[in-house]
Amino acid sequence: MAQDMTLLWGSGSCPCWRVMILLEEKNLQGYNHKLLSFDKKEHKSQEVLDINPRGQLPSFKHGDNVVNDSYAACFYLESQFKSQGNQLIPDSPAEQALMYQRMFEGLTLYEKLNAVIYYDWFVPEGERHDSALKRNKEALATELKLWEGYLQKHGKHLAGRSFSLADVTVFPTVATLFRMGLSAESYPQLGQYHALLKERPGIKRSWPPHWLENPKGQDALKDI
Amino acid sequence: MAQDMTLLWGSGSCPCWRVMILLEEKNLQGYNHKLLSFDKKEHKSQEVLDINPRGQLPSFKHGDNVVNDSYAACFYLESQFKSQGNQLIPDSPAEQALMYQRMFEGLTLYEKLNAVIYYDWFVPEGERHDSALKRNKEALATELKLWEGYLQKHGKHLAGRSFSLADVTVFPTVATLFRMGLSAESYPQLGQYHALLKERPGIKRSWPPHWLENPKGQDALKDI
Repeated sequence: MAQDMTLLWGSGSCPCWRVMILLEEKNLQGYNHKLLSFDKKEHKSQEVLDINPRGQLPSFKHGDNVVNDSYAACFYLESQFKSQGNQLIPDSPAEQALMYQRMFEGLTLYEKLNAVIYYDWFVPEGERHDSALKRNKEALATELKLWEGYLQKHGKHLAGRSFSLADVTVFPTVATLFRMGLSAESYPQLGQYHALLKERPGIKRSWPPHWLENPKGQDALKDI
Repeated sequence: MAQDMTLLWGSGSCPCWRVMILLEEKNLQGYNHKLLSFDKKEHKSQEVLDINPRGQLPSFKHGDNVVNDSYAACFYLESQFKSQGNQLIPDSPAEQALMYQRMFEGLTLYEKLNAVIYYDWFVPEGERHDSALKRNKEALATELKLWEGYLQKHGKHLAGRSFSLADVTVFPTVATLFRMGLSAESYPQLGQYHALLKERPGIKRSWPPHWLENPKGQDALKDI
């Protein structure tokens, strides 16, 4: 098993979840892991700083190799365990092109989501403007319409026929959108994608524990 | 040559330059390309929108495969032309780990640079705060100190001994830092890295044309 790996993580963090899905898909269960609390600022603890000078989660180590960024960890692990578990980079050039493109657009989706749901956290009180939050919400809605179109055009996974690194990296963002109240009626393609992938074994096994404990989400995005 | 490729680009755009360096390193000169003007809003022209619904540069096509995001295009091209030109992903797991990690931290560096130099462009007039710009400058300085440490520890390239995808993707940001007035005295490791890599043939050949025409940069970052 994966006893030479250590993951420090936080529940509900999309970057952490990406790495956990990847580890499931590559049959790398059995890694050492420790759930830390953002609320208690444990991501700024010495234990984290020893691996990750940014004091962020995930913090990940494989032997002596440290790969803390979630996309970096996904690429690294897929490369090191190419023939183990599920193949996550398709063979055909067309599907590869689509996969890489969607993976990186996924960072834009994630950023636009955060600019809405963490607005008050990012922006100090005296600098907040209703106009900015409104603009961020409109930018998120525009972004979501792009993804509706992508899913309509390319089918049930983000890079076409099979589950790929694009799904590993973007699904946690999609799940967070619905956790925060996004309407599957307004965004039916994303709703269908969410409903399909949340039943995938590697995703179920890595579902954020505090979401399991408290299945009712929030409604911050219900009008988006 | 690379006649089945088309790149629409803008001078001085870090994402465009990443793709151009990659194409040079893989001996893919001879691709079709068109220099567009951000000032004239040509990135929102139909020609761009036909390839890239976001209306952004770079917009890139290889045959029928569209890969517009710069990191996506770099990964895609390195994968399709693995054995052509320079190898950009090292073989050893330790160097790979470092390369992926630095590549993605490079996005954070780029974001923190933009939050300073494009502050007035990103934030509408009535929403600007000196306190926010000051904080962005401090965050950039903290970020730059991390990179000074990385270069001091790991030598002349970002992922160790050889030039890699980490350098392809991060060098344009470093060059922009110095173009915007960063002091090589205050950041000697970055200064040395910049001085070394700007002489690399593939980087020289793809140097932003408007920087060549007007070699004097700005001084927005001189006090960082």
